Formats: sequence, structure tokens, C-alpha cells
Amino acid sequence: MPTLLLDQETCLRNIEKMARKAAGNSLSFRPHCKTHQSAEIADWTRDFGVESLTVSSFGMAGYFARAGWKDILVAFPFQPGEKENLIALSGICRLSILVDSPAALPFLNHIPEQVGIFIDIDTGYGRTGIRTENPELIEQVIVKIRNNPQLEFRGFYCHAGHSYRTGNREEMNSIHLKALEDLSGLKKTFRKYSPEILYGDTPNCSVQDDFGKVDEITPGNFFFYDLIQYALGACSLEEIAVAMECPVAGKYPLGDRILVHGGAIHFSRQRILQQGSTVYGRQVQRTARGWTSPEEERFLTGLSQEHGLIEPCGTLIREVNIGDLLLFQPVHSCLTANLMREYRTLDGKKISTMNT
Amino acid sequence: MPTLLLDQETCLRNIEKMARKAAGNSLSFRPHCKTHQSAEIADWTRDFGVESLTVSSFGMAGYFARAGWKDILVAFPFQPGEKENLIALSGICRLSILVDSPAALPFLNHIPEQVGIFIDIDTGYGRTGIRTENPELIEQVIVKIRNNPQLEFRGFYCHAGHSYRTGNREEMNSIHLKALEDLSGLKKTFRKYSPEILYGDTPNCSVQDDFGKVDEITPGNFFFYDLIQYALGACSLEEIAVAMECPVAGKYPLGDRILVHGGAIHFSRQRILQQGSTVYGRQVQRTARGWTSPEEERFLTGLSQEHGLIEPCGTLIREVNIGDLLLFQPVHSCLTANLMREYRTLDGKKISTMNT
Repeated sequence: MPTLLLDQETCLRNIEKMARKAAGNSLSFRPHCKTHQSAEIADWTRDFGVESLTVSSFGMAGYFARAGWKDILVAFPFQPGEKENLIALSGICRLSILVDSPAALPFLNHIPEQVGIFIDIDTGYGRTGIRTENPELIEQVIVKIRNNPQLEFRGFYCHAGHSYRTGNREEMNSIHLKALEDLSGLKKTFRKYSPEILYGDTPNCSVQDDFGKVDEITPGNFFFYDLIQYALGACSLEEIAVAMECPVAGKYPLGDRILVHGGAIHFSRQRILQQGSTVYGRQVQRTARGWTSPEEERFLTGLSQEHGLIEPCGTLIREVNIGDLLLFQPVHSCLTANLMREYRTLDGKKISTMNT
Repeated sequence: MPTLLLDQETCLRNIEKMARKAAGNSLSFRPHCKTHQSAEIADWTRDFGVESLTVSSFGMAGYFARAGWKDILVAFPFQPGEKENLIALSGICRLSILVDSPAALPFLNHIPEQVGIFIDIDTGYGRTGIRTENPELIEQVIVKIRNNPQLEFRGFYCHAGHSYRTGNREEMNSIHLKALEDLSGLKKTFRKYSPEILYGDTPNCSVQDDFGKVDEITPGNFFFYDLIQYALGACSLEEIAVAMECPVAGKYPLGDRILVHGGAIHFSRQRILQQGSTVYGRQVQRTARGWTSPEEERFLTGLSQEHGLIEPCGTLIREVNIGDLLLFQPVHSCLTANLMREYRTLDGKKISTMNT
């Protein structure tokens, strides 16, 4: 069976670095837990002063609320199918949600507890949110929120996820600057409502130093990082805190390939271009204290449900035997962690998640 | 929450059709259960005479053995990390495994119960297996198998998965004919060992009528089919037996898009090209008895962890409201089912899987 190894020290360093960046910029820090989905890992952030979390679903919010977290933002536009979950959760934590249109608000009438509302703002990503260029609509939504005594308008939330589509630092900077400018404009326009500004994809939170009028950052992937973040320049290879341990199940010298047990139901089908080829993972070498880059770069280049192929595999084929364990850094750690549903630390301890 | 709907009638028709094809060609039928991973769905095949299953891991074999199945093939090359699982399983069912090199055989010494062995054969797919062109190696493996009294050489297994890479029926036919020819050659060359021939990817099992010297077919995806199979010509859209029900969470007229709750942790990141665009699902319309194709074709074109986007969404945006449920046929039903971990039938019954 493939096993997802977690290098706890690296993960703690990633948390500390992000927490220091937040503190250094006088920003609150509300890490997104969709990457790790683990109460134990979320608890590690308490030592760095974290008191509030971001999650991506009501199911996840419930899990972390039951684990003792008292301030949770569900960073997905509210839809009425979640009303029961919202009512249940608002009784056990300070719950906040996103809205990005007036259409969701009537479903929030007659709820028993107060719920915080952030308006989701689109500064160019084009996924969710009200465009900054539409202050009339934003005003309309704020007024409707404030007309409902059980809703507290808390501010604006922005995930500038188009940072993931950038090819160089200049593009990422210009996305960041546009977002800061837009959010600062909103803070000014709507100052009578004292809006908080929540912001922060992992790429920008990792590389930027100026956060303008932002009050709180909400990155998630930084806990583990991965090959996508590395390709974006958001982390070093050494900062990637998870790697999949896969048993070698076949060697095919004529095909110049090695088979491992580790496929799409372990890594996910997320892929990335590396040296012109599609890859699903990057081989690393186990060391006493974790893992390190091998002299010869090798990638997982083929994936089916349970099968992973390293092709070409070069000299590696002479170094490994059937049953040996190979390690791979994942392309997208969030999806990999979601599939694996638990971690094993380097000293062999199991860490569970909401799906364990 | 997204829900994976299962149209039980369509699934039963798919099972019946494949069982009839097997019977009509005097083939045994050992369906692969990696697609549905559900004991309840596997039980449906008993009415069609099925007595043996194919699975892709020892974990899956254990689940189906505990559910009462007595003859199970683990169709993944054996590696020694699974020896304990193999010993445990061989005590409760007639277990068979794959090997494709002499290297795995020493790890099968001193096992308490007899285990059946199929040699994995590569007729051109290039994933696992010994190439047909290498009869000396095949002979060598057979001899080693037969020298171990606890191993029973049962025959050859071939998954001609390069059928999935084909662009037209002629290519698929030539892959099939080459496989039949190779396997028939092996049956003749090694006739003194009376080998059984196991064969069968879903595309070829669905479209071919002649199976040559094959004894048993092992398709899996046919239970549900999906958009990949449809693109290959292996099924009709009406034969796709699963669809994901997703709540609408946002409407963005300026962006010509609709947001649904349904992302990469529900559908998987498997994609397919449709009308020149990358898509992750195809919208269908709910009816009283299941679903049907809408007049205007719409696809899930964007996917993040929990978000799905229909972009462009056309007139659909005027027809739906936040909270409405939209249905999507998945690109790759195996990966989608693995992520969702349970089904809901059209009359509302939950069907569990090994991961529920």
C-alpha cells in the first residue's frame, strides 16, 4: 500500500514562516485547512497564535468545530442546501460564510444564531465573487446583510487564484498589486461599515512582502507545499512536507520503466509539465531525517488507478528491487492528502484526517 | 454536498449485456470491481451467473472476500509488501495473483495455502507484463511457479489498455486482433500447462464480438461507463449509469458561468477533450426515471478542490437558481466513485462501498 509520509519538522517550519510573515505585517492568520483536513495538524498552528480557521465546506467546518475550534470561515459561496448545517454549526462556533450575490440572502432569514458574512470579491480570477468594478452590487448586498439582524457584515474575502496561472514573478506581482489596489479601494469606499479584508492564496502569501490594507491572510497549501507551488516559485523543493512512499512492483528494462503501487487513487490525476513531459510526482531519496533530491531526476510519468510508472527510469532500475520503497513528492498536495486520508510521520506516527 | 447518483436499472442492463456477451462467446465472466468497489453492486452480478471477481488491490480483495466472494483475482503484479495480506486472504478464498517476472516468486515460498498464479502478458500496452515476444522468460516463470507446490500456474492475464489511447475503431480492432493472436500463440506454445486466458478491457469487451482463444473476460468500467468510454465508442450516453448531483452555488452572467458545489475531490481531475475544450463532466437533465441529454450541451469546464464551473453556460443561467441541483456525467467513473465512496439510487437508497 502507498503511504503518505509527512515531514512534521518541515511542516512546522512552513507554519512558523507563514505565521512570522503574518505577524511581521500585522496581519491576522486564518489558515485554510482544506489541504491537510486534520485536527492534529491544525492544532500545531495554535503555538503560533492561530485562533481561527478557513475551510472549504460545511462538513469540514463541523469536523474542526468538534475538534474545539471556535472561529471558522467556510470559504465557499453559501447555497441553501447547507442551511441546516449552518444552523447546527452556528450554535457551536463563531461561524462566518461567503456570499457573492443578493440571491443567497433570503435563505438566511430566521436563523437562530448570528453568522458572520464576508462578501467574496473577484479581482480578476473569474471563479466566484462580485467584481470590484461593481460597487453598486456590493453596496446592495451589504445593505441586505445589515437588514437581517442575525447576519453580521464582516468584510471582504478575496482569493486571487489566478496567481496559479502565472508563468513568472512579474505576472504574479501584477495580480497581487491589482488585488491590493482593489481591496484597498473597497475598504475606503465602504469604510462606514469597517470591513475587514481577508486575502491570500499560498503563492502570493509565500512570495509577497507588502499586503497593503489586508487584515487577515488565509493560505492553505503552504502547510505542505507541492510541485505546483515549486513551479510557481512559491516554495523550494526542501519545503515540500509530504511525499508518497510506494512499493516497487515491477521492473521493465526493455521498456526503460519501473512500476510502483501508487496511482490516480493515491496521487490524484493532477499533472504538471516538467522538462516538457507530463508528470504526476517527483522521485526523492529517503534519508535518516526525511528525504533529499537524487542525483538523477526521475518522475512519475504514467498513472492508472493503482499503477504508477517511472518512464524513462534510467539507472534507477539497477538500484531498486521489487518490494523496495520509492518516495515521490506530489504535484498537488491538497488532492493527494484528500485521497490518502491519513499521514504517517517520519517516526511512524499516524495522523488522522476528517476522512480517516 | 454533491451526491453520486446511480441509475440501478442502467447498471443492471450493462451487467446483463456483458454477461450475455460472455455467455454467447462461451466465456467465463470475472468482472473487475475497482470501478464500483461495492459488495452490493457485485452481488447484482450473481443473478447473471458470476462467481468470481477481479480486483486491483489486496485491500479490495479482503473487502469482497469478507462479503462472501470465494474466487478473487488481484490483478496487480504481486510485490512482497503484500505477503501478509496474501496469506490472510488465501485462507478465506480461492486467491489468484499476477506475476510478470521471476523476481516476485521467491517471496511466495513457504505460504500456508495454495495460491493461483496468472502471468501478466504485455501485447503492446507497455504498462506491466511480460512481452509475448519473450517466450523463454515466460517458460522460466512457469517452471519456477510449478516448482513451488503452493503455487498453481493458472494461465495468462492480459489487459490491452492501449485501447484507451485509440482514436478510431480500426486502431482498437488492430490492438484487439494483435492481443488475440498473441494470446492464442501462448496458449499453443504452453499447451502442456493448459493455461487459461484472461482478457478484457471495457472498450474491447464492449465493442468486439470475436474473442478467439480467450477463456474469461475481466472488464470493470462497463458497470457504469463514462465519458471516456463514450468518446471511445464503447458505450452510448444512455448507458452511463452514474451522474453527480451538484447544488448551484453561484451565477455570474458577466462571466457567462455557473458555479456548482462539485470539484476535484468529487469528480477527480480526469479530463477529456470535448468540442476542443477540456471538460470534467457533461450536464444532463434529471427526469422522473433518471436523466436525459438537454437540448443545449453544457460541460463542467473548470474545477478546483470544491468548485465546479460551467463556462460558457449559455441559456442555462436563466433556468437555474442558487440551490438548484444540476447533474453531470463523469469523465472517469472509477475515479469519481472512488472519491465519492457511496452512491444514492434514483429511489433514494444509499449503496455503500469499501471506503464508506
